[in-house]
Amino acid sequence: MSKVITSREENYSQWYNDIVKKAGLADHSAVRGCMVIKPLGYAIWENMKAELDKAFKDTGHVNAYFPLFIPKSFLSKEAQHVEGFAKECAVVTHHRLMNDPNGNGVVVDPSAKLEEELIVRPTSETIIWNTYKDWIQSYRDLPLLINQWANVVRWEMRTRPFLRTAEFLWQEGHTAHATKEEAIKEAELIHEIYTRFLEDTVGIPIIKGAKTPHERFAGAEETFTVEALMQDGKALQAGTSHFLGQNFAKAFDVKYLTDANKEEYVWATSWGVTTRMVGAMVMVHSDDEGLVIPPKLAPTQVIIVPIPKPKDELMVHAKKIAEELKQLGIRCKIDDDTKKRPGFKFAEHEMKGTPIRIGIGQRDLDKGVAEVARRDTKEKMSIPLNNLGTEIQKLLSEIQTNLFNRSKTFRDDRITQVDTFDEFKETLENKGGFISAHWDGSVETEMKVKELTKATIRCIPLNNQKERGKCVLSGKPSEQRVLFAKAY
Amino acid sequence: MSKVITSREENYSQWYNDIVKKAGLADHSAVRGCMVIKPLGYAIWENMKAELDKAFKDTGHVNAYFPLFIPKSFLSKEAQHVEGFAKECAVVTHHRLMNDPNGNGVVVDPSAKLEEELIVRPTSETIIWNTYKDWIQSYRDLPLLINQWANVVRWEMRTRPFLRTAEFLWQEGHTAHATKEEAIKEAELIHEIYTRFLEDTVGIPIIKGAKTPHERFAGAEETFTVEALMQDGKALQAGTSHFLGQNFAKAFDVKYLTDANKEEYVWATSWGVTTRMVGAMVMVHSDDEGLVIPPKLAPTQVIIVPIPKPKDELMVHAKKIAEELKQLGIRCKIDDDTKKRPGFKFAEHEMKGTPIRIGIGQRDLDKGVAEVARRDTKEKMSIPLNNLGTEIQKLLSEIQTNLFNRSKTFRDDRITQVDTFDEFKETLENKGGFISAHWDGSVETEMKVKELTKATIRCIPLNNQKERGKCVLSGKPSEQRVLFAKAY
Repeated sequence: MSKVITSREENYSQWYNDIVKKAGLADHSAVRGCMVIKPLGYAIWENMKAELDKAFKDTGHVNAYFPLFIPKSFLSKEAQHVEGFAKECAVVTHHRLMNDPNGNGVVVDPSAKLEEELIVRPTSETIIWNTYKDWIQSYRDLPLLINQWANVVRWEMRTRPFLRTAEFLWQEGHTAHATKEEAIKEAELIHEIYTRFLEDTVGIPIIKGAKTPHERFAGAEETFTVEALMQDGKALQAGTSHFLGQNFAKAFDVKYLTDANKEEYVWATSWGVTTRMVGAMVMVHSDDEGLVIPPKLAPTQVIIVPIPKPKDELMVHAKKIAEELKQLGIRCKIDDDTKKRPGFKFAEHEMKGTPIRIGIGQRDLDKGVAEVARRDTKEKMSIPLNNLGTEIQKLLSEIQTNLFNRSKTFRDDRITQVDTFDEFKETLENKGGFISAHWDGSVETEMKVKELTKATIRCIPLNNQKERGKCVLSGKPSEQRVLFAKAY
Repeated sequence: MSKVITSREENYSQWYNDIVKKAGLADHSAVRGCMVIKPLGYAIWENMKAELDKAFKDTGHVNAYFPLFIPKSFLSKEAQHVEGFAKECAVVTHHRLMNDPNGNGVVVDPSAKLEEELIVRPTSETIIWNTYKDWIQSYRDLPLLINQWANVVRWEMRTRPFLRTAEFLWQEGHTAHATKEEAIKEAELIHEIYTRFLEDTVGIPIIKGAKTPHERFAGAEETFTVEALMQDGKALQAGTSHFLGQNFAKAFDVKYLTDANKEEYVWATSWGVTTRMVGAMVMVHSDDEGLVIPPKLAPTQVIIVPIPKPKDELMVHAKKIAEELKQLGIRCKIDDDTKKRPGFKFAEHEMKGTPIRIGIGQRDLDKGVAEVARRDTKEKMSIPLNNLGTEIQKLLSEIQTNLFNRSKTFRDDRITQVDTFDEFKETLENKGGFISAHWDGSVETEMKVKELTKATIRCIPLNNQKERGKCVLSGKPSEQRVLFAKAY
């Protein structure tokens, strides 16, 4: 199985598609732009969900569920929102089918036209703030810290599994606060939760930053972003947390009575991460042999392969080891397929990204050891059976750390400081990655750079040193460097 | 707060709506027929999900995710399916909005009409079997045991929160098998999982049965159902598991190569339970004071109320007790609101169905006891502090059992055997519940009974004794009794 995927060097884009397909993460569907998330891909998403859900709940958030549909008129209530957002979407116009009078299956029943069209939610600010109007009267009702796990639809012209699909899965948090300060603090808290999650669980080093006004979410006053770097040198926005000011409260007339009995508009945030993170995980960690899954996200962390066959005493030992590992909380399986040979199984689990493989053979057993292979470095080692559980635990943690460190080195090597536009273009073309350059702060320059190079401002890093300089394109004065990159 | 809901006796339907609203389970939304599931309602659903998901996974099922949309033409591929099912649904006809040329918000862009309309899934057999065609080639690919957690839409004219809504949440399992026997066994296994779940977790006694051909799922050869009884004497179908034969395999041309290299159509099942179960839980266990949640589903199992106020030493003790309970795996919270008085809090937690309330007052503390109240019987007791954890654990388990037993007694008292149609009507009118009566097996009789009484055949119980008799309506010979009832 080892030669079935295109190498990264040959064609990075095809390499990604090959892994998604061959590892069994997702499949195309009969519906344009929509993917089928296969069991392995979905199990990774479930692990992501569990981890994030816990982090949200630990910080006082609760889950709820709002309608899939949004009345068309809601979208135009917040002016910027509809401008920046809601145009490419799925529109429901009818609510009934009928038998085709000509006998060809079913057709739309023209008499079942909706009075007002419904939009399949591209995001839920409008329907949620319309609801919050009923839920919020006084400061006692605040803060409202609500999250929703849902599917959303944005009609995309060019789609790629996980990275950009018409329908995707996500969580969207929508919080309401009494003060501006509290809302900003909430947006920052979530920004930090996303950072911790991506770095500690997904193993992806990220840059914390703020978006430029032009790149902000439509309707936001500030958008915080976590930006990651893929192996082809392109950036990927992995999650965003928005401070929405009072924009949606004003659009939907959501006011509250303060402690002092004064009426005020409510302050808002919204924030989300999506199944796109599965794509980012693939792109950051995998190699030319296939998928690499960080142990914390791996549905199966350890696969045990009896050699040459899963039978008799070998299976007894395999089960004993599996039991020991499960006791330690390790997600472990025995490959007991009797029809495939060990070599085939090795390649298969390599392709599917299982972090650790344990080979159990009679000769090793006689020596009191097991043959252990780690997926990230492909290193093999003999580990004494009497110490196997502890060693595997250590190894899983080591793999998790190694994946993060490896990607961090890669990423750090690809943040290049440039001071001229020639350097800018040269770096972008030959090296890729993030380019740290001065920018005059104008949207004109931002768009001109994009037009000339396809690079966008990924973010204004939060830990930026203020530094006076000259804009890399316009030469006008600049107060700080920002990070440019081509992006997914 | 105790008088804020209508009593069951006065108006059962209004009582239900009052509880849903006042306990904060769900709210109406701006979209016709769609509800907002509020945090308490959603947390109960999450607990249901977790329990079912574990049961599915323990029996070898995996989760995946298929598209929200189904191409219109798919629906007509399985003839019975489209006849029985897919007419009242949300139809997507366009994929873009544009600014209204007259300046009034946004309108549908007529140039963005889809070539083929998309249907928001009312259930996913068609899109899934279209996908299985690519996934199944040989007997080695079977069985395929896949479940999906998703939202679905069926355009309903009359809706009620949880019980019948245009959009609802559910799980839908779709399995593929090499043999008929294996598929039937799968449908039975799930039927048993639903039974165990409803009885052991939701505390609802159910009757396991098969649907009549007329009441089967459109496209199924056998539909197994779990039927429950509500406090107003009406039945509710709480979950169904279908043996689909080879109908969908034939409609989507899904064949596999057998061990002997012969081509055969694949055998199928599908099965689902929905957010309707939250409604069933409310209707079965709650009382005139509000919601009653079985401990296994309660997001908060124990609420601690410091009396008179959450301060100083009382809070120290409350936290100590909460910590002790949490150590035992009990979901416990302290009501530390300083603005509400104990009496108000008591009524509030009663309304919200929290299984156990612990009052912590200085006088009780001095005596070394806590005042404990259980929600199901409203009984109060003093429990020594040094034994509190163990006693609360016991009490939770006792409440869980009591709720089941109470509903079982209620249900058993309302299964009435009748032999004449006068008795049938009289029982239905005055007593309600399930009516066990002979039926001649014809769809004509089944529909005539429905027309005359609104009662339908809920199921043919699986544990039925064969018993010759005469049909309660037609007088024709019958082989067994079936259960009739009015139903939600």
